[in-house]
Amino acid sequence: MAHDPSNHAPFPTGSAVQRTERALAAIEAAGDEGRRIFTRVYARAALQAARAADERAASGITLGPLDGRIVSIKDLLDVAGEPTTAGSAALRNAPPAAQDAVVVQRLRAAGCVLIGKTNMTEFAFSGIGLNPHFGTPGNAHDAARIPGGSSSGAGVSVARGMAEIAIGTDTGGSVRIPAAFAGIAGFKPTQARVSRDGALALSYTLDTIGPLAASVHDCARADAVLSGQPWQPLPVRDVAGLRIGVPRGWLLREADTAVLDAFEAALRRLSGAGARLTDLALDEWMKAPALLQQNGSIAAAEAAHVHREVLARAPQQLDPRVLARIVPGQSVPAPHYIGVLRERTRLQVAFDAQLEATGVDLLALPTVPIAPPCIAELERDDAAFMRANALVLRNPSVFNFYDLPALSLPFGQAAGLPFGLMLVAPRGRDHELLALAAAIKALGTDA
Amino acid sequence: MAHDPSNHAPFPTGSAVQRTERALAAIEAAGDEGRRIFTRVYARAALQAARAADERAASGITLGPLDGRIVSIKDLLDVAGEPTTAGSAALRNAPPAAQDAVVVQRLRAAGCVLIGKTNMTEFAFSGIGLNPHFGTPGNAHDAARIPGGSSSGAGVSVARGMAEIAIGTDTGGSVRIPAAFAGIAGFKPTQARVSRDGALALSYTLDTIGPLAASVHDCARADAVLSGQPWQPLPVRDVAGLRIGVPRGWLLREADTAVLDAFEAALRRLSGAGARLTDLALDEWMKAPALLQQNGSIAAAEAAHVHREVLARAPQQLDPRVLARIVPGQSVPAPHYIGVLRERTRLQVAFDAQLEATGVDLLALPTVPIAPPCIAELERDDAAFMRANALVLRNPSVFNFYDLPALSLPFGQAAGLPFGLMLVAPRGRDHELLALAAAIKALGTDA
Repeated sequence: MAHDPSNHAPFPTGSAVQRTERALAAIEAAGDEGRRIFTRVYARAALQAARAADERAASGITLGPLDGRIVSIKDLLDVAGEPTTAGSAALRNAPPAAQDAVVVQRLRAAGCVLIGKTNMTEFAFSGIGLNPHFGTPGNAHDAARIPGGSSSGAGVSVARGMAEIAIGTDTGGSVRIPAAFAGIAGFKPTQARVSRDGALALSYTLDTIGPLAASVHDCARADAVLSGQPWQPLPVRDVAGLRIGVPRGWLLREADTAVLDAFEAALRRLSGAGARLTDLALDEWMKAPALLQQNGSIAAAEAAHVHREVLARAPQQLDPRVLARIVPGQSVPAPHYIGVLRERTRLQVAFDAQLEATGVDLLALPTVPIAPPCIAELERDDAAFMRANALVLRNPSVFNFYDLPALSLPFGQAAGLPFGLMLVAPRGRDHELLALAAAIKALGTDA
Repeated sequence: MAHDPSNHAPFPTGSAVQRTERALAAIEAAGDEGRRIFTRVYARAALQAARAADERAASGITLGPLDGRIVSIKDLLDVAGEPTTAGSAALRNAPPAAQDAVVVQRLRAAGCVLIGKTNMTEFAFSGIGLNPHFGTPGNAHDAARIPGGSSSGAGVSVARGMAEIAIGTDTGGSVRIPAAFAGIAGFKPTQARVSRDGALALSYTLDTIGPLAASVHDCARADAVLSGQPWQPLPVRDVAGLRIGVPRGWLLREADTAVLDAFEAALRRLSGAGARLTDLALDEWMKAPALLQQNGSIAAAEAAHVHREVLARAPQQLDPRVLARIVPGQSVPAPHYIGVLRERTRLQVAFDAQLEATGVDLLALPTVPIAPPCIAELERDDAAFMRANALVLRNPSVFNFYDLPALSLPFGQAAGLPFGLMLVAPRGRDHELLALAAAIKALGTDA
């Protein structure tokens, strides 16, 4: 790969073939756990793609910012000729996809080495990452703990060196939660930025597609390819003078003390670097999405439509925790759903104006208010599962509702586990959010 | 008004004040029937607007193609300071509208003389035109018969010389049906063409706003103002060589013999003028909207949302025939509604391609397959009402579903009552449809 002088992140070392071999070896070495992280591994095609990338590089040809990079894709993205299982046993015999999802087409055209498909919460409908069909991948920092979901394998695949970049989807936090729990960056774009054609939907209204990677710069590279935007290195931004709004209140409730400590440490670090922090009283706005949907959520109603055939044919094949979330969607009345969508549109416009009026460049929050719970505890206790699920989704999902770009940045530790700082920008300012996040990440957290 | 040499329709004779006085006199002379046609009459403001138009004309100034024209507006369009009653007793004490609907703003800015608000089916939810709250206006050609709805007063106001142009809304035929029964032209545009801001919705998905007038040219003038497009006189088109598709089949079923005879006479007239008629087998496409919605319609679900407060507060105040159509919408499950909207999008794209493949310029159909029934009969017999309602909406509503521009043209007679020929064009070809309809109208029907 050509050297990009504007790139502040370290380049992966070695040829594409060497790095692919290392990734495949890491998957292999993980044994059964590798099979819980990946639902499919494309060993042969990955090595072919890696060789082609190396040959291009040797001739001075590049397909762009992801040429020769090792990328995993979430199990809900169509790959021509394969059933798209979306983490579900009920879809193992689904008809094979006729063509690659648009983002898969773009990744291939950009020279990526597609290493495999990563495991996920069935149908992407939980932020925890348990999967009774394909097994639950352990957290990369403590295998007894949950990986976060729904893009569970995505986060672990990057954190354990099995991929350099993972492509996930985020309907209520499904990119940002596993990124936070894996100690990597995870970026959810403004919805319209990335085509969802060929991605099995959870919610037509809320789904987004975004990358997880160790560095913000790799997220930016992946975002350029996923969105089909011309690649532009991130502009250099200064943390000094940056206006950051902190909506203390409801989104900090029920938080672990260690998480709160890590968050305050992160804010001190930002303040020390010259950022101007402002407390914002946004609780009404932050609570509005949950309040509006308490008698029937957009995601449940839409998921009940997406999965109507499986629900009719073989509900007993589904993870009961996923079934319990979809079934209420079947009886949401259409007038309620119509009202929620219309009120969402009104609130989006109003919150855009509210954010504008505060004059901040970013909002900062903990991505998740708790450390990743133990897998065994949530498997044992459905009530604990539902409580933890609601809590991990609470903060990220607000910004799917408002459709604002948001990024979880690994920024310090909370009781020895990674802490994810969620940064949120105004609608459409995706590239600027990535640039600001890179500047913040460059501060380091060892102060 | 300046003479427009490209205009083939006769101009109204007399000054704006004279014509306004005649219109007001016609309303006054109709006595109680005038109060069934108009829910409000703006006598003073109309005369003021007419004087201003005459003064402009005397100074050689024009505000465009509708300057000084007498226009009635449907009772569901917001007028600042008035409750928008939408034909409902339950809305008589609604809070006054804060501002004029966008189309009302445009009509005023274009110099129109707004003569009054026309009666309608309550909430616009039927094609018949009965209204137990404000009374049912009689058909202009036989007062014992229905006017057609939901823009009932709109059609009658033009046919009886109380307005030159009427503004209606069309969700399933509510402009075209009363136009057909009144023996005038009625134009339903492609939905996105005309802003619906400030029009009380029946169905967010299907509502459109369009004009009714004696001539196609007046419909075109009104369309330019309603849509905010620059006024361009209709290009002159030749019927010779025009390719017209005739989807005989389901949409001719249960038709009155007199209507079928009038339709065939119209086709012979077109053929005699050199149009190339082709029978098209489109029954699957024509039936698809009803089939798809048999377990819950878009309009019912959306109307149940729009009117949720009245439904909760005072359902007994509603016309039981309207209530019977809205109540089922309350229990349409959201996943069904979501599925209908998605399938509609798929069918629209597919039918666009199908129409393109047939190579026709227009489809031709009877707007309604029956002569207007007697008011007393439908008031007496709810089953007869429901049957007639389904039948009059059947043909027009297909093209709200596909969102194609459609126009009902008075073109001959069926058993002494007007016959409406519905012409349908590909999506977005609204101006071309108006030009072709004008050419067809110019053939006359006395051959």
